Amino acid sequence: MAVITLTTDFGLIDGYVGIMKGVIQGICPGAVVIDITHDIPPQDILSAAFLLHVSYPYFPKDTVHVAVVDPGVGTERRAVALRTSNAFFVAPDNGLLSFIIEDEKVEEVVNLNNPRYRLPKVSATFHGRDIFAPAGAYLAKGVPLKELGQPIDVEDLITFPIPKAHREADEITAQILHVDRFGNLTVNLPMERVREKGEELVMIRLPDEAHPLRLHPQSLKIHIGGYEISGVRRTYAEGNLGEPMTLIGSAGYLEVAIPGDSAAKRMKMKVGDEIKVRIDRGC
Amino acid sequence: MAVITLTTDFGLIDGYVGIMKGVIQGICPGAVVIDITHDIPPQDILSAAFLLHVSYPYFPKDTVHVAVVDPGVGTERRAVALRTSNAFFVAPDNGLLSFIIEDEKVEEVVNLNNPRYRLPKVSATFHGRDIFAPAGAYLAKGVPLKELGQPIDVEDLITFPIPKAHREADEITAQILHVDRFGNLTVNLPMERVREKGEELVMIRLPDEAHPLRLHPQSLKIHIGGYEISGVRRTYAEGNLGEPMTLIGSAGYLEVAIPGDSAAKRMKMKVGDEIKVRIDRGC
Amino acid sequence: MAVITLTTDFGLIDGYVGIMKGVIQGICPGAVVIDITHDIPPQDILSAAFLLHVSYPYFPKDTVHVAVVDPGVGTERRAVALRTSNAFFVAPDNGLLSFIIEDEKVEEVVNLNNPRYRLPKVSATFHGRDIFAPAGAYLAKGVPLKELGQPIDVEDLITFPIPKAHREADEITAQILHVDRFGNLTVNLPMERVREKGEELVMIRLPDEAHPLRLHPQSLKIHIGGYEISGVRRTYAEGNLGEPMTLIGSAGYLEVAIPGDSAAKRMKMKVGDEIKVRIDRGC
Repeated sequence: MAVITLTTDFGLIDGYVGIMKGVIQGICPGAVVIDITHDIPPQDILSAAFLLHVSYPYFPKDTVHVAVVDPGVGTERRAVALRTSNAFFVAPDNGLLSFIIEDEKVEEVVNLNNPRYRLPKVSATFHGRDIFAPAGAYLAKGVPLKELGQPIDVEDLITFPIPKAHREADEITAQILHVDRFGNLTVNLPMERVREKGEELVMIRLPDEAHPLRLHPQSLKIHIGGYEISGVRRTYAEGNLGEPMTLIGSAGYLEVAIPGDSAAKRMKMKVGDEIKVRIDRGC
Repeated sequence: MAVITLTTDFGLIDGYVGIMKGVIQGICPGAVVIDITHDIPPQDILSAAFLLHVSYPYFPKDTVHVAVVDPGVGTERRAVALRTSNAFFVAPDNGLLSFIIEDEKVEEVVNLNNPRYRLPKVSATFHGRDIFAPAGAYLAKGVPLKELGQPIDVEDLITFPIPKAHREADEITAQILHVDRFGNLTVNLPMERVREKGEELVMIRLPDEAHPLRLHPQSLKIHIGGYEISGVRRTYAEGNLGEPMTLIGSAGYLEVAIPGDSAAKRMKMKVGDEIKVRIDRGC
Repeated sequence: MAVITLTTDFGLIDGYVGIMKGVIQGICPGAVVIDITHDIPPQDILSAAFLLHVSYPYFPKDTVHVAVVDPGVGTERRAVALRTSNAFFVAPDNGLLSFIIEDEKVEEVVNLNNPRYRLPKVSATFHGRDIFAPAGAYLAKGVPLKELGQPIDVEDLITFPIPKAHREADEITAQILHVDRFGNLTVNLPMERVREKGEELVMIRLPDEAHPLRLHPQSLKIHIGGYEISGVRRTYAEGNLGEPMTLIGSAGYLEVAIPGDSAAKRMKMKVGDEIKVRIDRGC
């Protein structure tokens, strides 16, 4: 059974999402359609790109991910679809697939300009209904990607730069990747908890280093917005109400939180802002 | 695979929608159930009627549309279902199907009073669960409409008057049909963009005129709430932040918007209010 | 077709629910997944427990109900699943199944500790994805409950006490079980409307009395937060704007409401608070 996901900033109030699903069922009857979210902040392409990046790995092979955050709808911006060995992605060509292009080996990209795989009338304001939902549904139905339009080079897709953490000696400079609805901050430091020789360690994979760091969770001092947070906790339950803490978020990144409060507001941090992580070897 | 849509003012917080879907799966296992919206403003029948009107054309043939905005639940108001050549509609008899009755040739209407196709116990407060969801599910399962209750004449259904735009010489008087969550105003002027002899024109279909008007988009001057807006744009992207603009909305109606602001609030316009569109032939 | 329900406090903004559904489709392709709600107030286990209690009876036999409100995620609290003759329930062992254990004869309970039926990596912060969604999906797929982990006694599950109404002579003492999003109050008095000898009566089932009371709706005087409300109405439509009223809610409990206002706020009542119902035999 084909699976299609939807990620948009359309909200659930005005019926736009329901209409997209109607179009999908008309083309690919019985498709399983799953909402990732429709509450992306209006026109926040980066936020949608990040959410897609952390969500798609949990879907079955060959799922078709349709993402529509589309400030340029009706302009010259292209509608595109791409195929990797794991999944299909359908979106406006506006940077929404930036993370995916880094995550995956892209095998094929097309410009969704074959009118046969759009609705007969294409409006200037709702390509989610007229172009993206049909494209997703035809892919889910098994139409080969190349039928949907002309091939384009993956290098020609619009992407935004994804900030990378880097280390100099014992200081790591990292950036805020995402702020969730509770004001928790996701940092671009991929982390994992591992157990070695009876000890719980955190393993940090820095993008430009061949070998992951293995460190005691207490050895990390996080400097952010004037605060210093010592150590990386396992769970929210280990934190204290109102006190800044860090843990490894469910997407496998360092996360900064203040239980019962918004870290983003209290620390005045937003996407792109820098933080420092110092490694205290004496610890 | 049968498709059922749901349109209600129940919200998603209290579990009512989930319960309706449970009832549906019990009667018609595997039915594809699609939410149009559950965020109709409480008891706003007109808003639900409009949303159904703009949404149902995008669903597969024979979709069963169940709509429940039901201030009269538990009173003498009837529960009804009707069939057109395209779809089924199930709703309280309170005007919710007013647009549908205008849009479609209604082939059959019944009063949903056959207890066999309701839940065994019918509460006085939740007919969405006890009457409407079961009716929708039995129709999706293929039970003939006439089994669900006694036939009634379509003329006997309760409807509210739908305001119609009309033209005198070069002035069109029209009305606000709907206000969306951004405060954008949908006007009862069906419009389409057409290309003729290399020119982009807007085609306006007035309900009491045999032939559509074909006009240059710049020839239209929209007078609304003390504002004059010149011309009809193609996309939101052509507007300027904070400046009133018009375009053809995704449902094929004239739409008045203020990028970054609520046109409804700024212009103090609400559903039913009048606007004027002047045609400037000199243009 | 297997049906799985989801009840969480995850909200729909951050994509967590979509990820759970992706995991489910990967394990049990084509499963019908129904949201009961994802808007449980954060960490409000009691509210989730109540909603599950009033919702599950409307789902098909053998539906798998997955509920995740989990303040103790990542701590020593157990993840459990149980089977009754009607359905499966999957949840953290924190009281979330308290009502279910009272409602149903529990046939089997397991601790969800078999790693084979979890995701390969289990995070410390998102067991909805890593443990509960997989468990629900495997059960929906037909894996026997006992495969999912070690058996435990139902008596060993954590439950919270569910307050019970009781009667002394003509005075019933009852408690608020739930407050809905409109501020309507659900009281732990199971009621039903019956018609006997041409008269409409309310039938009240008190948990420690063998025979239900049969009373004229007007004979009940409800004393709550300093207000006295006379009689039990059939529908909201019988109430007056701003005036306290009672009726039998859709879940079959006495409900206290103020049309157009929040009874919870106006009467300063919350879950657990006591109310009195006096039976006026002279009536």
